[in-house]
Amino acid sequence: MTTERIATVAPIEEDQASERVSAVYNDIKSTKQIDFIPNFWKVIAVNPDLLEQVWGQLKTLMHPEAVGRESNLTPAIREMIAVAVSATNGCSYCVNSHTAILKKHGVDDETLGEVLAIAGLFNQTNSLADGFQVVSDVLPRLDA
Amino acid sequence: MTTERIATVAPIEEDQASERVSAVYNDIKSTKQIDFIPNFWKVIAVNPDLLEQVWGQLKTLMHPEAVGRESNLTPAIREMIAVAVSATNGCSYCVNSHTAILKKHGVDDETLGEVLAIAGLFNQTNSLADGFQVVSDVLPRLDA
Amino acid sequence: MTTERIATVAPIEEDQASERVSAVYNDIKSTKQIDFIPNFWKVIAVNPDLLEQVWGQLKTLMHPEAVGRESNLTPAIREMIAVAVSATNGCSYCVNSHTAILKKHGVDDETLGEVLAIAGLFNQTNSLADGFQVVSDVLPRLDA
Amino acid sequence: MTTERIATVAPIEEDQASERVSAVYNDIKSTKQIDFIPNFWKVIAVNPDLLEQVWGQLKTLMHPEAVGRESNLTPAIREMIAVAVSATNGCSYCVNSHTAILKKHGVDDETLGEVLAIAGLFNQTNSLADGFQVVSDVLPRLDA
Amino acid sequence: MTTERIATVAPIEEDQASERVSAVYNDIKSTKQIDFIPNFWKVIAVNPDLLEQVWGQLKTLMHPEAVGRESNLTPAIREMIAVAVSATNGCSYCVNSHTAILKKHGVDDETLGEVLAIAGLFNQTNSLADGFQVVSDVLPRLDA
Amino acid sequence: MTTERIATVAPIEEDQASERVSAVYNDIKSTKQIDFIPNFWKVIAVNPDLLEQVWGQLKTLMHPEAVGRESNLTPAIREMIAVAVSATNGCSYCVNSHTAILKKHGVDDETLGEVLAIAGLFNQTNSLADGFQVVSDVLPRLDA
Repeated sequence: MTTERIATVAPIEEDQASERVSAVYNDIKSTKQIDFIPNFWKVIAVNPDLLEQVWGQLKTLMHPEAVGRESNLTPAIREMIAVAVSATNGCSYCVNSHTAILKKHGVDDETLGEVLAIAGLFNQTNSLADGFQVVSDVLPRLDA
Repeated sequence: MTTERIATVAPIEEDQASERVSAVYNDIKSTKQIDFIPNFWKVIAVNPDLLEQVWGQLKTLMHPEAVGRESNLTPAIREMIAVAVSATNGCSYCVNSHTAILKKHGVDDETLGEVLAIAGLFNQTNSLADGFQVVSDVLPRLDA
Repeated sequence: MTTERIATVAPIEEDQASERVSAVYNDIKSTKQIDFIPNFWKVIAVNPDLLEQVWGQLKTLMHPEAVGRESNLTPAIREMIAVAVSATNGCSYCVNSHTAILKKHGVDDETLGEVLAIAGLFNQTNSLADGFQVVSDVLPRLDA
Repeated sequence: MTTERIATVAPIEEDQASERVSAVYNDIKSTKQIDFIPNFWKVIAVNPDLLEQVWGQLKTLMHPEAVGRESNLTPAIREMIAVAVSATNGCSYCVNSHTAILKKHGVDDETLGEVLAIAGLFNQTNSLADGFQVVSDVLPRLDA
Repeated sequence: MTTERIATVAPIEEDQASERVSAVYNDIKSTKQIDFIPNFWKVIAVNPDLLEQVWGQLKTLMHPEAVGRESNLTPAIREMIAVAVSATNGCSYCVNSHTAILKKHGVDDETLGEVLAIAGLFNQTNSLADGFQVVSDVLPRLDA
Repeated sequence: MTTERIATVAPIEEDQASERVSAVYNDIKSTKQIDFIPNFWKVIAVNPDLLEQVWGQLKTLMHPEAVGRESNLTPAIREMIAVAVSATNGCSYCVNSHTAILKKHGVDDETLGEVLAIAGLFNQTNSLADGFQVVSDVLPRLDA
């Protein structure tokens, strides 16, 4: 049997996981209501501290209801920010997975296009402001 | 009289502007309901084509009501994406100006913190996914 | 019949395009003198505002003759900047398409190598200047 | 006497330089026809290997005549690429110094604006192509 | 009394901190053995969830002894990675603070120069590999 | 016979190489103790100046023993910095090749995970510090 390469390291499959890793895997599946472990988590599990830290943070920020936290943002807005940042960094794994989640939240292609259009606009204006070394005019108002 | 340096080029002040540049300046002031021209626009006005193109795009995307366009996003969400991308790129001018606008839309510091927390989380996971070269597991679903 | 996945969204094929999208598609084909619509445009067409804005800007900047604009740069120089920026951002789609265009303008591999060498040099010196937090010594001269 | 901080390390002033560093400093001054050592070089001189390597590369690429090399690009084009990349990375030191050099080569503000406009456009389209994960359509032609 | 602006938001000073924020502040001071709260933490404290998450992760990764964790890296290596990444992103706050910590660990300017030289080299080669779209030759070996 | 496309340009194979390029190729093979030329070098060889410069710098920094240089870092630390920077930039070629080299130096997957965890943490905190525009508190100490 041949296994396709999914990363630069050997992923930790569910049936190989230590008790500590299994606990996180189970939390991922129940929190995200999915029945498999996405590649990202199987890969960072090569370092259990990393797995715990990143999952803890993603759970807190992207699944606030699971930790009894009040979020000021809707799930769709949170995913829009995720996709905008991932597009800016050109990370295909994160773009793919969070575009899929965004669609599950009912966001259509035209709206995704609007999100990416705004991200694109600011990637443009960021380089213009830095390229001309423009000095901020709004600092005083931020102090208020 | 001495003028502080605000960019690598001499900005086009309102009283120096050509008719073409003045038309954009007036549109900026009336669309944004402000009584001055922010440094960014005075600087990119050194190239009137650039000024027209970028203002046209920013007006369409960030002030859709001004062009009779329906946006699927609220003004606050649009600014959140702007700040998240600008934070990712480390552009101080854009972070400053769009944080100020975000606050005008009634977004408080804690919510700004949530936006930047999510941007920060994805800057982290983007580098992890790329650093381990994780292969996407969700492609088939995107085809649907 | 199966269609290969070319993006996270379903591209708008020419025979599916609305009148508004078709108008842009026709302009792309006649301006670029090509007989197909590249994937990039078919994809961003999911949001017609985005398609119009980005095409309008690319046409103005990269095909100035098509809008009766005087450019101070040659077509090859414009494409060199495009490739240098796309290499810096690691965007494979844009590197591929603009390298192809650069070659159409008669730029050979050795010259492409020189462009990328300079881009590489500045990616290096940028990180050194930022990594040591070097303060600018040339500001006064920019004021002049 | 107080010295302003110009970096995270103490720069190597000309009168403190070792013979090895002095040799590079003299080459910088004669190649660039300037009578002072810019901060960047005084700072990276804390590691003489670094100073020699980066200066050697910058001299070869940006001052080809000094090493008897044929360049396929003009000095102004080389500086345009330098500014476009530095704007993309938001490096203020490099933007400032290479904008100053670009002006010495007779490039006016409007043309600088055109260079930065193209850089800005591709920072935008790069994030769109990556944000939609658009698959390249021009690969076959690159093989030719 | 006037307070200098240190961020786009009002930092949470120690005497204003809620019990939850104070607990983190005390942990920061005792873990880092410092007697003040650095600006970064006072600023992200506007969102206590963010403060807790980022501090928890930084404590685990950068102060492993404080959580009883075995690290495979020395403190100096950890800080070198921090500075290399921060230089790549051009983040002045992080470059400044982690260069200071690196020096506390006894790393001299020449060695800092070597770290930044390697970071600079890879910022260069990264853009070259992406700019030429070079296909990996070592994948098979990673599978092993 | 068909050749797989490995870049946007035709690579220079060993049996096609000029004397100048061959000299570098031989140095690469003997310095790295490998019996083939990795794609990266075969590709940048389209511009022999580029090949010589980048190889010279990589040899000096990553193979200091080959040039009789004293390095203050171990081979494994140098490769960790290479991988951390390449992960930050999302460069798959460089991540792949330097992860392979890191493993040759005996670094296991868990330790690679720790390196990438720290890189990820700083990609996060960099965007937070820039996103809140936090002012440095440690400048005075750097002067010391």
